[in-house]
Amino acid sequence: MENIVVRYLEKPTLNNPIFIEGLPGIGNVGKLAAEHLKDELKAVKFAEIYSKYFPPQVLVLEDGQIRLVSNEMHYVKRPGLQDFVILTGDYQGLTPEGQYELTDRVMQEIVALGVRQAFTLGGYGLGHMVTNPRVLGAATDPELVKEMEKLGVVFSRSEPGAGIVGASGLVLGLGKLYGVRSVCLMGETSGYFVDPKSAQAVLQALTKILGIEVSFAELETKAKQIDQITSKLREVEAQPETPTKEDLGYIA
Amino acid sequence: MENIVVRYLEKPTLNNPIFIEGLPGIGNVGKLAAEHLKDELKAVKFAEIYSKYFPPQVLVLEDGQIRLVSNEMHYVKRPGLQDFVILTGDYQGLTPEGQYELTDRVMQEIVALGVRQAFTLGGYGLGHMVTNPRVLGAATDPELVKEMEKLGVVFSRSEPGAGIVGASGLVLGLGKLYGVRSVCLMGETSGYFVDPKSAQAVLQALTKILGIEVSFAELETKAKQIDQITSKLREVEAQPETPTKEDLGYIA
Amino acid sequence: MENIVVRYLEKPTLNNPIFIEGLPGIGNVGKLAAEHLKDELKAVKFAEIYSKYFPPQVLVLEDGQIRLVSNEMHYVKRPGLQDFVILTGDYQGLTPEGQYELTDRVMQEIVALGVRQAFTLGGYGLGHMVTNPRVLGAATDPELVKEMEKLGVVFSRSEPGAGIVGASGLVLGLGKLYGVRSVCLMGETSGYFVDPKSAQAVLQALTKILGIEVSFAELETKAKQIDQITSKLREVEAQPETPTKEDLGYIA
Amino acid sequence: MENIVVRYLEKPTLNNPIFIEGLPGIGNVGKLAAEHLKDELKAVKFAEIYSKYFPPQVLVLEDGQIRLVSNEMHYVKRPGLQDFVILTGDYQGLTPEGQYELTDRVMQEIVALGVRQAFTLGGYGLGHMVTNPRVLGAATDPELVKEMEKLGVVFSRSEPGAGIVGASGLVLGLGKLYGVRSVCLMGETSGYFVDPKSAQAVLQALTKILGIEVSFAELETKAKQIDQITSKLREVEAQPETPTKEDLGYIA
Repeated sequence: MENIVVRYLEKPTLNNPIFIEGLPGIGNVGKLAAEHLKDELKAVKFAEIYSKYFPPQVLVLEDGQIRLVSNEMHYVKRPGLQDFVILTGDYQGLTPEGQYELTDRVMQEIVALGVRQAFTLGGYGLGHMVTNPRVLGAATDPELVKEMEKLGVVFSRSEPGAGIVGASGLVLGLGKLYGVRSVCLMGETSGYFVDPKSAQAVLQALTKILGIEVSFAELETKAKQIDQITSKLREVEAQPETPTKEDLGYIA
Repeated sequence: MENIVVRYLEKPTLNNPIFIEGLPGIGNVGKLAAEHLKDELKAVKFAEIYSKYFPPQVLVLEDGQIRLVSNEMHYVKRPGLQDFVILTGDYQGLTPEGQYELTDRVMQEIVALGVRQAFTLGGYGLGHMVTNPRVLGAATDPELVKEMEKLGVVFSRSEPGAGIVGASGLVLGLGKLYGVRSVCLMGETSGYFVDPKSAQAVLQALTKILGIEVSFAELETKAKQIDQITSKLREVEAQPETPTKEDLGYIA
Repeated sequence: MENIVVRYLEKPTLNNPIFIEGLPGIGNVGKLAAEHLKDELKAVKFAEIYSKYFPPQVLVLEDGQIRLVSNEMHYVKRPGLQDFVILTGDYQGLTPEGQYELTDRVMQEIVALGVRQAFTLGGYGLGHMVTNPRVLGAATDPELVKEMEKLGVVFSRSEPGAGIVGASGLVLGLGKLYGVRSVCLMGETSGYFVDPKSAQAVLQALTKILGIEVSFAELETKAKQIDQITSKLREVEAQPETPTKEDLGYIA
Repeated sequence: MENIVVRYLEKPTLNNPIFIEGLPGIGNVGKLAAEHLKDELKAVKFAEIYSKYFPPQVLVLEDGQIRLVSNEMHYVKRPGLQDFVILTGDYQGLTPEGQYELTDRVMQEIVALGVRQAFTLGGYGLGHMVTNPRVLGAATDPELVKEMEKLGVVFSRSEPGAGIVGASGLVLGLGKLYGVRSVCLMGETSGYFVDPKSAQAVLQALTKILGIEVSFAELETKAKQIDQITSKLREVEAQPETPTKEDLGYIA
């Protein structure tokens, strides 16, 4: 089979579209944010991406049907304004080579759709609980850095120290080669739990930048659920023989 | 060498054949079931599949001869009825990429043989002993879900939670792209032992669906052997310093 | 670069040559045996095999020069008799895919040189010390099994249970596809040390089969050195706080 | 995408250039040495190498801009003398295959630039602290060994025992196939810390060989910083409950 199969359900004609990426990662911040945005803006799925760089796995849906794991592209048409292309998905590539191949292919597809601007959404793991997550930024050029700073995005000298790993970084890195000006927005997160609060912070920054408004009710509900779980855990932790971080794992 | 070598011993002409897959996996349920079916129906081997995605290994047979590890396709001709193609084998692909490549190649071959319908057989690991294994299902379309439910297959909202990994899942996932309507039948199993009882449950479901009858004597004999081993282990476990699950491993 | 580079120093014309393979593996039995045979028969190196499936490594020779890790083919001309082609080397392929690719390429090269018969040499790890190693066999066809049994090779129903992994197995497995009748000779070995005694047992079987004679003096000297090391270790083991098997590792 | 992308910023015409490689490795000796040389000689970057064999990562610079991880080639023009080509970078290839592919590609590029001579710089890990690191050598031919020995490079019979792994070795190994006479200079280092002192020793040897002079002030400053850290650690080690080597890791 081809290494990557991009299956277009529709070939949309888009007006100078802005690309927004949010795939699974630290705290699932990027995925939560991009999916929330997609839902709130009633984005239309127009392409499915299958690949041998994803796990060899199907997901079983509530009705007993299966779905091969994939990434998906959705568009939002905004008459008279720049359209959006939103990338969401079940997984990132399993290997470094797969990550490069997948992001490079996505870049080819979105450039063909007219994309010249991109935002990637992700989490920045701190290793400790965060009450008011900041949104850190990184960008492909100094003008973008200045613009984003004016809009409240934090550019911090030493953060993230290890750089940005995965699709959220590669879109920027390859973006420089493809001529796509890009910004990465990273919400601070503990990294221990799925973090809707961090996703909301990221989306608040993004919507301010894009000049749009969306409801955050869904994310706030999810955040409360996570808060309940984590506060219970803190109670348990106060007692002997507690579950470890590993036991809790990700709650997706 | 080619990544995958399909060596036809015979190019059969088949009547609207149904594909049945059973490869090694959890509890070896799928492999046991497919091999039992193949034996009982006196299926004829017509193709061998070799691949660099399998381990670099030969098996030494009882008479001192060797056999390169492989997957094998067998047919069952049923005059006036739909024929069967049964896939069995020593291994699944070692890597995610290998799994995709192998299943995709199998899909190409069986579609060329006229397959439009498939059943994949596997185990669903519970992590605890099971007395009466249920058979869980998943399918490529809602009509199949309804049909299977009528025949006693369980479609359970939250199971399997992690989806289906490996060939049993990929045949369904890629089946949707190849136009092959497919059902996965998963027998509940502890996952600690080879589980002929679970394989029997899966085959009972499958034979009912296919409207055929086979003897289960062989599987019942194997199940008794496993029962004897596991009951001994339970005795040992009741005493200090017992072997761990890891020590027992798979008994193939 | 090409995945595998075969660099011929000379393109020999050979008389119905017999292929003999001995690469690193359990107890380094195959490598020791093939290198000893190559030295004793004054075999002439005629090809070097480089590959990205080997470690990215050069070896530093005693004179300060380096050598890229490789496999090597050597010939032995025997006027009026079948010639020999001996394969030795620093490593086997690092990955399963690499192992298949390398052995397949070797099969192509030796078939082009006229090889229709092969012997592969290796160790059979027992996990305990062995005083008088037997030589176990496996073969591509039943006539070869009978022939070898007459010459003292042991064909044992249940051994080796896990089959034969690596080049010594693949030459037989792919040999069946390439029409090369092949025998694997495996010397019993503990698997904890390089085992020249097991290599000698394998070579004694092979030379009897080939109807040739070689001195074993070198291997016997090496065996004595290993014996001294292991007997010291056994003394140490009798005392508290001994080095583990892992600490000793391979002595190459 | 292509497996390796070489992006020329400029196609320099060079006079019989000498290639100098220093990439991350044991003690980061090679990288420190090559980067220091590049800075001191005011070398001009003329090519960037991107590859899916590197980690899927961007680095965030101090000003908030990102940079896709890469290797870089720089030239130094020396009118009337042999020019230099210096290779530095963020990473070596992540896999053995990636290492071969990357070095092979570099060899192709530098041979096209006229390179017939190369020096590779690296560390030789001893596993214990070193006060006065020696510089060990290895070379592609015996004349080079002699020349280097005269200039103070140590060629030691049993060192390095395991050969040379990675780009510093492969340039020599593939150099023999490409007709590039090459020397590897390895500074002794503990392997526990980034080691500017060892890098200085290597550069002192190299500059003597090349007949050039550079200031070592920068490296000496870095060495003092590392010395302060390690001496603090030794104090801590003298007390109960000390951080382990693993905790300290690399300080890059």
